[in-house]
Amino acid sequence: MLELLNDKKYLEIRKIIEEMNVVDLAEFIQEIEDNPKVVILFRLLPKRQAAEVFAYLDGEIREKIVNGISDKELYEILDELFLDDAVDFIEEMPASIVKRVINTTDEETRRQINQILMFPDESAGCLMTIEYADLHSGISVEEAIKKVRKISPERESIETLFITDHERHLVGTLNIRDLLAAKDSTMVGEIMDANVISVHTHENQAEVADKFKKYDFFMMPVVDNEDRLVGMITIDDIIDVIEEETTEDIYKMAAMQPIEDSYMETSVLTLARKRFTWLAILMISATFTGLIIEKFQSALAVNVLLATFIPMLMDTSGNAGSQSAVSVIRATVLDEIAFKDTFKVIWKEFRISIVTGLGVALLNFIRVYLMYKDLQIASVVSITLIFSVVAAKIVGSTLPLIATKLKLDPAIMASPMITTIVDAVALLVYFNIAALILPGI
Amino acid sequence: MLELLNDKKYLEIRKIIEEMNVVDLAEFIQEIEDNPKVVILFRLLPKRQAAEVFAYLDGEIREKIVNGISDKELYEILDELFLDDAVDFIEEMPASIVKRVINTTDEETRRQINQILMFPDESAGCLMTIEYADLHSGISVEEAIKKVRKISPERESIETLFITDHERHLVGTLNIRDLLAAKDSTMVGEIMDANVISVHTHENQAEVADKFKKYDFFMMPVVDNEDRLVGMITIDDIIDVIEEETTEDIYKMAAMQPIEDSYMETSVLTLARKRFTWLAILMISATFTGLIIEKFQSALAVNVLLATFIPMLMDTSGNAGSQSAVSVIRATVLDEIAFKDTFKVIWKEFRISIVTGLGVALLNFIRVYLMYKDLQIASVVSITLIFSVVAAKIVGSTLPLIATKLKLDPAIMASPMITTIVDAVALLVYFNIAALILPGI
Repeated sequence: MLELLNDKKYLEIRKIIEEMNVVDLAEFIQEIEDNPKVVILFRLLPKRQAAEVFAYLDGEIREKIVNGISDKELYEILDELFLDDAVDFIEEMPASIVKRVINTTDEETRRQINQILMFPDESAGCLMTIEYADLHSGISVEEAIKKVRKISPERESIETLFITDHERHLVGTLNIRDLLAAKDSTMVGEIMDANVISVHTHENQAEVADKFKKYDFFMMPVVDNEDRLVGMITIDDIIDVIEEETTEDIYKMAAMQPIEDSYMETSVLTLARKRFTWLAILMISATFTGLIIEKFQSALAVNVLLATFIPMLMDTSGNAGSQSAVSVIRATVLDEIAFKDTFKVIWKEFRISIVTGLGVALLNFIRVYLMYKDLQIASVVSITLIFSVVAAKIVGSTLPLIATKLKLDPAIMASPMITTIVDAVALLVYFNIAALILPGI
Repeated sequence: MLELLNDKKYLEIRKIIEEMNVVDLAEFIQEIEDNPKVVILFRLLPKRQAAEVFAYLDGEIREKIVNGISDKELYEILDELFLDDAVDFIEEMPASIVKRVINTTDEETRRQINQILMFPDESAGCLMTIEYADLHSGISVEEAIKKVRKISPERESIETLFITDHERHLVGTLNIRDLLAAKDSTMVGEIMDANVISVHTHENQAEVADKFKKYDFFMMPVVDNEDRLVGMITIDDIIDVIEEETTEDIYKMAAMQPIEDSYMETSVLTLARKRFTWLAILMISATFTGLIIEKFQSALAVNVLLATFIPMLMDTSGNAGSQSAVSVIRATVLDEIAFKDTFKVIWKEFRISIVTGLGVALLNFIRVYLMYKDLQIASVVSITLIFSVVAAKIVGSTLPLIATKLKLDPAIMASPMITTIVDAVALLVYFNIAALILPGI
């Protein structure tokens, strides 16, 4: 394709382009974004395809294309773009381009874009498109099919039709399958599903995603304060929301504040800032663990070998605790457990910790005894392991559940926080058991 | 509702039931699953609703219901269930129930169920349903609409129609919107999208999910080795796949082998087994960190205060490393970065580590100096922090990318693994800098 472009064989390029999927085409354009001919290639696309490809491109290349095309071409793309894609595009462009875009669109589109831009970030209003298909409840199936056939070219999807009354109140939904299966003379109001599940414009995107997951819908109507139909959200956008929310959880679990763009698009300073806060908090907290060692300095002075096992004890307790914390956090996110299950969870984790604790303790006893031929040290270290694995798993499973009860995000109770706490516990257990078993401490 | 059930006011219950969403109804039945009247309530449901509610119930309550209904009722439910839901149901039932189910279904359904059960676990074949809507490419739009209207009651969704030739080869797809928008006399073959994106029965579910995410489809055709249409996958099942795959990633990142059922449904012994392996491996690895302390025993003997800072240095390096590892792993999963970006990523992480490293070092210098009034110790600890944060972030960001290059799952290179490695690095740096700066070590 690049060769054809260099040889200016535009007709042949158009032929290839016509047979390609728009997503693959967008991927190709993305790959050659540094090539000066990329704008020429884009301008070769037929109108409709150009808009679809445009919807799949990243910010940088979009800017380059907008700067390289005429106002008329820009108008055509904006006209063909689904409104939610147009809004996404405008939100990420620099002010100069936004101005040109706003000047290029017609008044109606401009008004609609402004309306969507007004909704709070991460709200259903921001996610929705207004290219839904709506029908009046008082018409017959025959009329409804006629209307759907007329309006469908300009709708993003007609899988679910939204049924409204005279005042645009949402009174039902109707799957296109059920409309087509019904008899011509039946009234839409009779076959629609009157038990409407909808979302509100101001609902948070995470709640919207939960509703989609719960009800297995492909699309859902969005209503305003007066229960009037104002838009629809489609499930493909929900997948992006789910990925976004998961990334946020994972970041929090690794002691970072979530970032808003992708990793590569986020600046070094922003990334550093998002990571510094927790790094500093946990560093200060770890000081307390240090103070435990300081308190038992005399024990270390008597038996310096004791220091050798500190990293292993800290790491193993930390890992045992974060295993539990992460299991519980994920199960909470997936709605498998809630605060009321706290005792069930603790009892489960207690039994798991006994099994795994005994396992690692036995392994470690053999290892230490073989290396140092010292039964007492081997006993101290292994007994500590059992106690600290049990403590770690109980702390690790309980704290996230307490966080949910306090309406905090359980994800902040993940590995690093748990590690800091169970490290201190492990060392306290260690030195106390050492004092009991070893002579002269 | 429970009161009405106790008073045997069945007619009133049916009235309430009719107006409820099936998902909410399933949730209610789930909540009262220990109530002996739950089966009676279920038997009050109209046929179609019963099947839909059944599809949303968990294993235990399903078993209870199947044991409480007649063969005729079971047959009706199985007949109304979409085939993929029926297969899911059969897969999780004990053998005795499976036998009764298989005996109850008609031969055609039995054959279809067996066929789907044959596909490997987590394959597209397992995810697909055969209730798709297909059309022949050689018919007109008018005939097509007539056919769709006839077959639609038995299809799971008709949002996308699959177009086949005489030998059932998949030759195109057609959105219902485009079919309805077309003129009656047009041929289906002319308006279909001939650039078909499909998945193969043996394709892994994670790859299928990637295709859905890439192309924003609501459903996708499944073909066999000869490119013949055999089924379709809908996006609501893909959301479950995405959640499942994410849970697997998160488990691996926390040093656990993934579990197959939900946390609460998995036994204590299975959970213990899934966690023990990594716990033991990482415990043994941490031994090497211990050996570093052993090697520098004399330094600790000279200045016991040095031991106090070990937990803080280990925790901070571990956290710094896992922040980078988790960021890079997530970006890899989301296809934002690949192995070819290794140097870009390292350069980015290097700059982040300088900023955050200097930050925590400064904080720590002030803290240590205020507590111990010892400039030398404060310097040793703070310089160690800078070096170990830098090392941690570079190790943490590089190892996951190397793992992808070696076709390993990058998630196993997450926090616990990185922590073990960077702990050793931090201690080595610590004792060497101490030997340089402090007198007599």
